[in-house]
Amino acid sequence: MSTMGNSTNIFWQESPVGKLERRKLLNQKGCVVWITGLSGSGKSTLACSLSWELHTRGKLSYILDGDNVRHGLNKDLGFKAEDRTENIRRVGEVAKLFADAGLICIASLISPYGKDRDACRAMLPDAFIEVFMNMPLALCEERDPKGLYKLARAGKIKGFTGIDDPYEPPLNCEIELNQKDGVCPTPSAMAGEVITYLEDKGYLQGFSS
Amino acid sequence: MSTMGNSTNIFWQESPVGKLERRKLLNQKGCVVWITGLSGSGKSTLACSLSWELHTRGKLSYILDGDNVRHGLNKDLGFKAEDRTENIRRVGEVAKLFADAGLICIASLISPYGKDRDACRAMLPDAFIEVFMNMPLALCEERDPKGLYKLARAGKIKGFTGIDDPYEPPLNCEIELNQKDGVCPTPSAMAGEVITYLEDKGYLQGFSS
Repeated sequence: MSTMGNSTNIFWQESPVGKLERRKLLNQKGCVVWITGLSGSGKSTLACSLSWELHTRGKLSYILDGDNVRHGLNKDLGFKAEDRTENIRRVGEVAKLFADAGLICIASLISPYGKDRDACRAMLPDAFIEVFMNMPLALCEERDPKGLYKLARAGKIKGFTGIDDPYEPPLNCEIELNQKDGVCPTPSAMAGEVITYLEDKGYLQGFSS
Repeated sequence: MSTMGNSTNIFWQESPVGKLERRKLLNQKGCVVWITGLSGSGKSTLACSLSWELHTRGKLSYILDGDNVRHGLNKDLGFKAEDRTENIRRVGEVAKLFADAGLICIASLISPYGKDRDACRAMLPDAFIEVFMNMPLALCEERDPKGLYKLARAGKIKGFTGIDDPYEPPLNCEIELNQKDGVCPTPSAMAGEVITYLEDKGYLQGFSS
């Protein structure tokens, strides 16, 4: 019997089918690819391209998109600092379940605060791959795919990351994507970089002999 | 742009790999098997047996166990009525994501209130299979695998389902498991009953020709 958080009398139930069995079945190793960056930096584009490239290789992935999750699991949360933290915490916990289930979970969220990302990393030792979309604010603002920078500059959105709320760049990410000579890599080139990393680290195979 | 719950300026991001692609890849149709019943009614036993039987058939499943989830995603929640409701809501949302990802998600929770279970059913039209472990309270209390009924009878746990908090039996469940002539079916017989249902409804195949 244990006391955890606000719950007492909570037991841990072991499943007879574990990580190893699912790894064999799927021929891949569950993990979380955590894509962080400013709005407009290309997180969703990379997530979609990566998901597609993995699918063509017969690998099972699933995208946890920051916006989509706010339509469901996190619809009770807003954008205050503590709500952002709880948003990231829950996505981290769900991503952990997906990785445990054997999937390559692609989490795509601005996730501006280093401590929130690090809390997720701590939940997933050896299975957390942080990808930093290191694109200049000016580029993101020029793209403004959702028209949000305009609203933020006009003061119609408060606490917008990059404008009047900070983005803390990762200090220890596994992969950093940025412009080369002022040119952005293509979505498939960016996906390719992540896939090479996953291959090198053995996430795309069942068991090495 | 949309306003949903406490969030505004939230968009919906479509993934290029959808339900159908994952159904082909996994040769199964994502769904949620929601196991409800009193503590000690055999929910976890069925969940484990079912997960194992599915695995031997090459099918990918994942158990969302009520207790386990309270160690992670729902560790901020207790056992007050509104916390129980939020507990079930979040598990329902996560189960929906797993079903969308193509897994056979086995949710195993007391989930005592009909309205909470029905809210999850509403999230998952055509993919929610409610399994009612209809075992007598006396049997569950005699088993008392976690020693909780004893604590509840002694007044050391308040609001314990079946003792001083109600369990509302499902009115429209897909599968009801109970004793035959006072004898409980074996775990594998119970799992077999669920698997027959899943087979009949096409959840264990990719596409019918």
